Amino acid sequence: MTPVFPFPAIVGQEEMKQALLIACVEPRVGGVLVFGDRGTAKSTAVRALAGLLPPIETYEHCPYNSAPGSAPVNGDGRSRGNVVSKPAPVVDLPLGVTEDRVVGALDIEKALRKGEKAFEPGLLARANRGFLYIDEVNLLEDHIVDLLLDVAATGENVVERDGLSVRHPAKFVLVGSGNPEEGELRPQLLDRFGLSVEVETPRDIEMRIEVVRRRDAFERDPHGFCAQWASEVDALRTRIAEAQGRIGALETPEAVLRRASEICLALGADGLRGELTLIRAARAAAALNAADEISLEHLRAVAPAALRHRLRRDPLDEAGSSARIERGLAEAFAA
Amino acid sequence: MTPVFPFPAIVGQEEMKQALLIACVEPRVGGVLVFGDRGTAKSTAVRALAGLLPPIETYEHCPYNSAPGSAPVNGDGRSRGNVVSKPAPVVDLPLGVTEDRVVGALDIEKALRKGEKAFEPGLLARANRGFLYIDEVNLLEDHIVDLLLDVAATGENVVERDGLSVRHPAKFVLVGSGNPEEGELRPQLLDRFGLSVEVETPRDIEMRIEVVRRRDAFERDPHGFCAQWASEVDALRTRIAEAQGRIGALETPEAVLRRASEICLALGADGLRGELTLIRAARAAAALNAADEISLEHLRAVAPAALRHRLRRDPLDEAGSSARIERGLAEAFAA
Amino acid sequence: MTPVFPFPAIVGQEEMKQALLIACVEPRVGGVLVFGDRGTAKSTAVRALAGLLPPIETYEHCPYNSAPGSAPVNGDGRSRGNVVSKPAPVVDLPLGVTEDRVVGALDIEKALRKGEKAFEPGLLARANRGFLYIDEVNLLEDHIVDLLLDVAATGENVVERDGLSVRHPAKFVLVGSGNPEEGELRPQLLDRFGLSVEVETPRDIEMRIEVVRRRDAFERDPHGFCAQWASEVDALRTRIAEAQGRIGALETPEAVLRRASEICLALGADGLRGELTLIRAARAAAALNAADEISLEHLRAVAPAALRHRLRRDPLDEAGSSARIERGLAEAFAA
Amino acid sequence: MTPVFPFPAIVGQEEMKQALLIACVEPRVGGVLVFGDRGTAKSTAVRALAGLLPPIETYEHCPYNSAPGSAPVNGDGRSRGNVVSKPAPVVDLPLGVTEDRVVGALDIEKALRKGEKAFEPGLLARANRGFLYIDEVNLLEDHIVDLLLDVAATGENVVERDGLSVRHPAKFVLVGSGNPEEGELRPQLLDRFGLSVEVETPRDIEMRIEVVRRRDAFERDPHGFCAQWASEVDALRTRIAEAQGRIGALETPEAVLRRASEICLALGADGLRGELTLIRAARAAAALNAADEISLEHLRAVAPAALRHRLRRDPLDEAGSSARIERGLAEAFAA
Amino acid sequence: MTPVFPFPAIVGQEEMKQALLIACVEPRVGGVLVFGDRGTAKSTAVRALAGLLPPIETYEHCPYNSAPGSAPVNGDGRSRGNVVSKPAPVVDLPLGVTEDRVVGALDIEKALRKGEKAFEPGLLARANRGFLYIDEVNLLEDHIVDLLLDVAATGENVVERDGLSVRHPAKFVLVGSGNPEEGELRPQLLDRFGLSVEVETPRDIEMRIEVVRRRDAFERDPHGFCAQWASEVDALRTRIAEAQGRIGALETPEAVLRRASEICLALGADGLRGELTLIRAARAAAALNAADEISLEHLRAVAPAALRHRLRRDPLDEAGSSARIERGLAEAFAA
Amino acid sequence: MTPVFPFPAIVGQEEMKQALLIACVEPRVGGVLVFGDRGTAKSTAVRALAGLLPPIETYEHCPYNSAPGSAPVNGDGRSRGNVVSKPAPVVDLPLGVTEDRVVGALDIEKALRKGEKAFEPGLLARANRGFLYIDEVNLLEDHIVDLLLDVAATGENVVERDGLSVRHPAKFVLVGSGNPEEGELRPQLLDRFGLSVEVETPRDIEMRIEVVRRRDAFERDPHGFCAQWASEVDALRTRIAEAQGRIGALETPEAVLRRASEICLALGADGLRGELTLIRAARAAAALNAADEISLEHLRAVAPAALRHRLRRDPLDEAGSSARIERGLAEAFAA
Repeated sequence: MTPVFPFPAIVGQEEMKQALLIACVEPRVGGVLVFGDRGTAKSTAVRALAGLLPPIETYEHCPYNSAPGSAPVNGDGRSRGNVVSKPAPVVDLPLGVTEDRVVGALDIEKALRKGEKAFEPGLLARANRGFLYIDEVNLLEDHIVDLLLDVAATGENVVERDGLSVRHPAKFVLVGSGNPEEGELRPQLLDRFGLSVEVETPRDIEMRIEVVRRRDAFERDPHGFCAQWASEVDALRTRIAEAQGRIGALETPEAVLRRASEICLALGADGLRGELTLIRAARAAAALNAADEISLEHLRAVAPAALRHRLRRDPLDEAGSSARIERGLAEAFAA
Repeated sequence: MTPVFPFPAIVGQEEMKQALLIACVEPRVGGVLVFGDRGTAKSTAVRALAGLLPPIETYEHCPYNSAPGSAPVNGDGRSRGNVVSKPAPVVDLPLGVTEDRVVGALDIEKALRKGEKAFEPGLLARANRGFLYIDEVNLLEDHIVDLLLDVAATGENVVERDGLSVRHPAKFVLVGSGNPEEGELRPQLLDRFGLSVEVETPRDIEMRIEVVRRRDAFERDPHGFCAQWASEVDALRTRIAEAQGRIGALETPEAVLRRASEICLALGADGLRGELTLIRAARAAAALNAADEISLEHLRAVAPAALRHRLRRDPLDEAGSSARIERGLAEAFAA
Repeated sequence: MTPVFPFPAIVGQEEMKQALLIACVEPRVGGVLVFGDRGTAKSTAVRALAGLLPPIETYEHCPYNSAPGSAPVNGDGRSRGNVVSKPAPVVDLPLGVTEDRVVGALDIEKALRKGEKAFEPGLLARANRGFLYIDEVNLLEDHIVDLLLDVAATGENVVERDGLSVRHPAKFVLVGSGNPEEGELRPQLLDRFGLSVEVETPRDIEMRIEVVRRRDAFERDPHGFCAQWASEVDALRTRIAEAQGRIGALETPEAVLRRASEICLALGADGLRGELTLIRAARAAAALNAADEISLEHLRAVAPAALRHRLRRDPLDEAGSSARIERGLAEAFAA
Repeated sequence: MTPVFPFPAIVGQEEMKQALLIACVEPRVGGVLVFGDRGTAKSTAVRALAGLLPPIETYEHCPYNSAPGSAPVNGDGRSRGNVVSKPAPVVDLPLGVTEDRVVGALDIEKALRKGEKAFEPGLLARANRGFLYIDEVNLLEDHIVDLLLDVAATGENVVERDGLSVRHPAKFVLVGSGNPEEGELRPQLLDRFGLSVEVETPRDIEMRIEVVRRRDAFERDPHGFCAQWASEVDALRTRIAEAQGRIGALETPEAVLRRASEICLALGADGLRGELTLIRAARAAAALNAADEISLEHLRAVAPAALRHRLRRDPLDEAGSSARIERGLAEAFAA
Repeated sequence: MTPVFPFPAIVGQEEMKQALLIACVEPRVGGVLVFGDRGTAKSTAVRALAGLLPPIETYEHCPYNSAPGSAPVNGDGRSRGNVVSKPAPVVDLPLGVTEDRVVGALDIEKALRKGEKAFEPGLLARANRGFLYIDEVNLLEDHIVDLLLDVAATGENVVERDGLSVRHPAKFVLVGSGNPEEGELRPQLLDRFGLSVEVETPRDIEMRIEVVRRRDAFERDPHGFCAQWASEVDALRTRIAEAQGRIGALETPEAVLRRASEICLALGADGLRGELTLIRAARAAAALNAADEISLEHLRAVAPAALRHRLRRDPLDEAGSSARIERGLAEAFAA
Repeated sequence: MTPVFPFPAIVGQEEMKQALLIACVEPRVGGVLVFGDRGTAKSTAVRALAGLLPPIETYEHCPYNSAPGSAPVNGDGRSRGNVVSKPAPVVDLPLGVTEDRVVGALDIEKALRKGEKAFEPGLLARANRGFLYIDEVNLLEDHIVDLLLDVAATGENVVERDGLSVRHPAKFVLVGSGNPEEGELRPQLLDRFGLSVEVETPRDIEMRIEVVRRRDAFERDPHGFCAQWASEVDALRTRIAEAQGRIGALETPEAVLRRASEICLALGADGLRGELTLIRAARAAAALNAADEISLEHLRAVAPAALRHRLRRDPLDEAGSSARIERGLAEAFAA
């Protein structure tokens, strides 16, 4: 197995890395969208996540990664085996995937050999309790993106096809990456991602050289390179696991609740998803920082990623959404 | 099982909640359409309905929820089992559903194993005597929406496909929700929903904070939160059941009949569906209020939801349809 | 079984009711098209026809409703059973019907179980000697409408598909209804319907109230309502049966033939179908009136429905086609 | 069996009737196209042809109507039975026909039951040595019209599909009818029909009344009506059979050959098909008239039908093609 | 079998006939495109080729017409039988052909009966070492034309479909004919044909009469007509066979090579295919003339057909490509 | 077997030849795109590559060309046979290829015969550790190009279809060629090819004559021609093999890293892929030159091919991208 590029060895791109860590700690934050130039380590970062996630407890033969003690899916009577520890799944959704493999479908082999109508779980089952990654999410067919967002929102995959009627848990963090030059995501989909970050090719020449140098070193000796970064990876994995343990106990102070609503009203973010995401992301940030409670600073730190993609377009204001967010936050926190 | 958010804990959105209660009491009102901003509890409200509906009596193994004493569908000779009490169905129509699962289709397993041409009922069968919910109804393919409205109107599912010829009862309340920014519903479909309500993100900051506070509390401890609201849920369930019992005895006074026709003529609502819906909805409102007869006040209360989507577009009147309804009603009841 | 709303209880809409009665008496009149506002009893009227038609004599197991003494379809050697009396069929063509169910197709069950290539008759077979009803005919796919008109015109269903080659009688009255706001019928199809009527929401308030009152009464007690109207239904059924018996003996006076041609020439109706339809419809009207011969009055009464949809569009004459027909008829009969 | 309307009872439409008779006598004339108003007896005339054609000699069980002594199609070894006399085929191509039934296809029943790959002949086989009729040829899918014209031109059906490779004789007269208001035929297809005639609703009132009177009489008593016309039908059938026997001996005088070329050059008809068709049609006309040789009068009589659809469009000459043909012929024969 | 019209009996159209003869002698010349008016003997000429080609040596049962001593396709172990002499194939590609029959496909019969995955060769196999003719090449679907040109260029058919992976020789001369009024060939395809000729309806009346006279004679007595032309056909067949034997020894003088390049540079023909085709076609012309070496006259004679379709469109030069070629050649050979 | 045209016998086109050699030595350079006029030896060059590549070591029966010691794909338990030496694959992707043959699919034969769900590898498996060539890459369907680029980038083929879930190594150099006149490649795809070269028809007459002379000689005696060039082919094959052995040891001097970043920043090439490709290609060029380390000269030599297709379009600069690259490089290396 070729090793994957280590997460901490990615040069710069701090906002993207922070958003992915938040999603590791609080999956309910609702998916991460990473948009930007080609060649900016988007895929590298997501694929590196697999090395950071704490393992999960589940049944040995359960294709849904069900939690110990949960009821079998659709009352399936077969043995699920013992409870074991498995790596948290990071599932790749390849371009050209067919809908049947995403949601699951009739098991053709069983149908042909035994005349039985059994369900063959798809990628949504495999991603349960982990991450589902779509590179070039803007190239994926709309109906599949709709479907993924739907399942990601409800945490459950409802299958009604091929004469099958199945529902199973499918709680995962959806990560989508793409290059806006190859086509925007439909505006209606934007808002359904929890966090959204923008990445750019670094303009600083020293940083560029460092990127190429590390990549060149990794390609020429992947194992050696990973060994160099092993302790940083371990530290980060521990930090995530501790944050996961800590987050349940973090209360939301009234001031934080109120400030979140004020910011959203001021920025004109539609609906209430902005406020809910702000609270969830700030709580995860607090947990990652080992803070005792959620503070206004945590709120401010996560606000750009949580709100950037929820602003109403203002035809009189030509500033990009990142600039408008920053201006709005400066005012909100100055007040 | 994760519990669902309790219906009475939804903050505000009174018109939407009233329309759903009316449909619980008088399913012939003809479906409810809920349109509005993202993140306004549309889905939450519909999913919470399941906790409010009184159970139904039906046969243990009947996939059509047939009423006791009714004839078997298509003369099916298999035993339907004993009459039992089941929860009234609230069926979700997932995006990406295939037509065969909606209307039912040839049972492939039976065809392959026994060479028999049997009918496998679909979601329309499962929704009989309950609710059928379509989130993002405006994203569903037109031909499926047509089909659902057709069946909802006649209360019967006529299947002519795969060499099958079946008809079975399919009496359900169709509830559709959507965000108008993602695409309007075709005007011809609008009129075929009985009631239509509009929801908005609350602009009041205290209300917004209350929404986020309740949601945050529910997410952190769902069971505890539901326990707090259990008595309110029970009270509402009882109120619905009583109204269902009472509605059959409610006469329609001549003055109410006449006022309904006057309003529709004055507002220029096409056809006679407006009048029929007005009467049905007013009767349900009277039953929910435990009134002795339908009054003009009941009529006035339900008129916006019953008529808003039936106004002819008036190119010289730029007021929205809700404003025009209010103006028209003010005049009609002042007269 | 829920009873259907009684035909005579429909308020107003006299032209539509007359056209349907004519088609009951003389099916060769060539189909009826009913276009107009939503909620004007179009579907109700057609569905009520089933209660008016005299029963037909046919073989017990014949899926084609063949007349006694006719040859079996395609020389099918199976027993057709005894001659029995059955209700005349009124077949509903549901939206979403597949072409195979309309025209008939390979019987998949027989093919799979016995390897036999048998024909499974479709809705065209079932409608033989009765009515075929398409609600929202303007929403049906064009190729299916073409196909239905073709079969309706020839009275025979020629099937060449799935390796099958079958022809069977399919004499039925095609009734299509629709709302012009949802899309016009292609002009080329218009002319192929024998009669065409327009329906409107009544503007008279007393009439509107009466419609709602009767509908409300029917919904609250369908069986009681039908009992009230039973004698009117019986009388109408008898009138139709008598007219059917009488029509064969009605001669066409030379003056009627000549006047029919004069009207069509004067109105510029294309082709000779207008004249043929006029004669056929006038003969049916005379039979319904128990007249001894076809008179000019019968001709005048049916002319609007027979010709309205056959006028060439005149860009200089902005009057609707109904108005132009009336003007033309006034001149023709004044002469 | 309902009898068909007798060919000689068709009122007027002489050019159409002459073109069909020519095609009966000389099938190589290359198909007849009948275009014009609705309700002008187009279909009636073609369907009546079946009563006029002399029977053919062929093998009892041969699905290709092979001539006695011809080789079996694709070396098929099964017995074709005795030579018998059968009615010449007049095959209807229904709208909605699938390509497999037109050209023939894999015999599914044999494939499933015996695992054999046998050819099941289609309508092109059935039409061999007779007529193939397409009503509304302008509504048929282009690729099927192309295919039919191709086969009609070569007299052979070459099938390369479903893993089958078959060629069989398919010599038939293609007759297409249509209404130009429902869509023109592609100009490229026009020229590939041998003869083209235009039909119009008669403007003469006596003629119109006669049409309706005969049709009315036929509908009221089809058998009696046909009996009245039987001797005229017999006479015409004999005339065709005699012309078929006589045509082989008719030489083409040099003057006729030369005049045909002169006319085509003068009228600017593209290609040489015009000349070839003129000669063939004139020879058939001479045979129908029992003439001793083809004369210039025969040429002139058939020229409009043979050339009308081959004129280059002349943007400066607004006269219709029929008028231009007449003008050109007047000049050519005056010279 | 009806005989085909003899090649030498075609009146005029010398350039087309010469191009086809060149392709018979040197198949690597790369296909012939014949474009022009309807009714100009295009198809007649190609179908007559079959009578001119010398037979080929191949294995009795080989569906690929493999040359003696060649390896079996895909190592197929079945006996190919003895080496025999067969007529060189002239294969017709019918309109409506499916891709599977062109390239070959899974043998369904073997798959169903024996569960074996065998390849059933298509028309490309059958055309190996002969001609493949497409009438109306401009009406064929683009993807099939692409495919044919690809295979014609490489001389090999690579099949990757239905789970099959086969490659077999497919060396044939592609001949396409069409009428530019029915649609041009895509410009990118033009250049991939080796030679291109234009045909026109003759304007000379004597020639036209001669065409019609011969055609009429052939239709009235095909066998007698062919007997009259038999010696001319034999002479031409011998001339082709001798040219095939002679062509391998013909050297290309340096002056010819140089002049070919000069002409192409002067005319602005893209790429080097023009030069290669010029040399190949000139060599075939020399062989047909029994010349000792390729001369500049041979080059000049074939240049219009080899280059006409390779000129860059020049918006300032309205002359047709044939005129521009002639002007360019006049200059090149004057120099 | 007809031999292929020898790589060194291609006249001119040095940049294309150099790019292909670089890809042979360093496959990670990321694919080569060759665009230009028709008839410029694009396909010839790629097909000639097969003669230059050193053989690979792999298992005798492994359809994935797995390296010795690698794990079996998806834990496939069948014997892979002994390690043997095979020619490196150069796989042709024919137009009209179906997606199942590209990525692999369910093995239908096994499914039908044994009811087993086995994977049948496709062309991506066959190309592993070699080249995959697409002639006319701009005509291939976009979704297949996307898929190929995706797999080429990750070196792994992830299959999720037909109920199969397989991943196998697919490391190959993608070579695409095309003619820009037949349609550009989508801009988003351009950047994903590592190197891009442009080819033109030579304008120099001596060079043109030499091309035609060599081609003519090859066609008349392929084996003799190849024998003449055998020693040049051997020398080139050895040079590639030695460069492959040497490349692992070549360090990247800091100055080269820095200059690469400077050039990309100066030219405004998006992302960091330009820099990474520059380094990789320069290293391969150094290895081919048997240099001791990568020099700035190597960088400059490969820069046009590595960057030409990555320039942002500059609407004010009408120079072609090749000219702009040269100008930019001249400045960068002058500085």
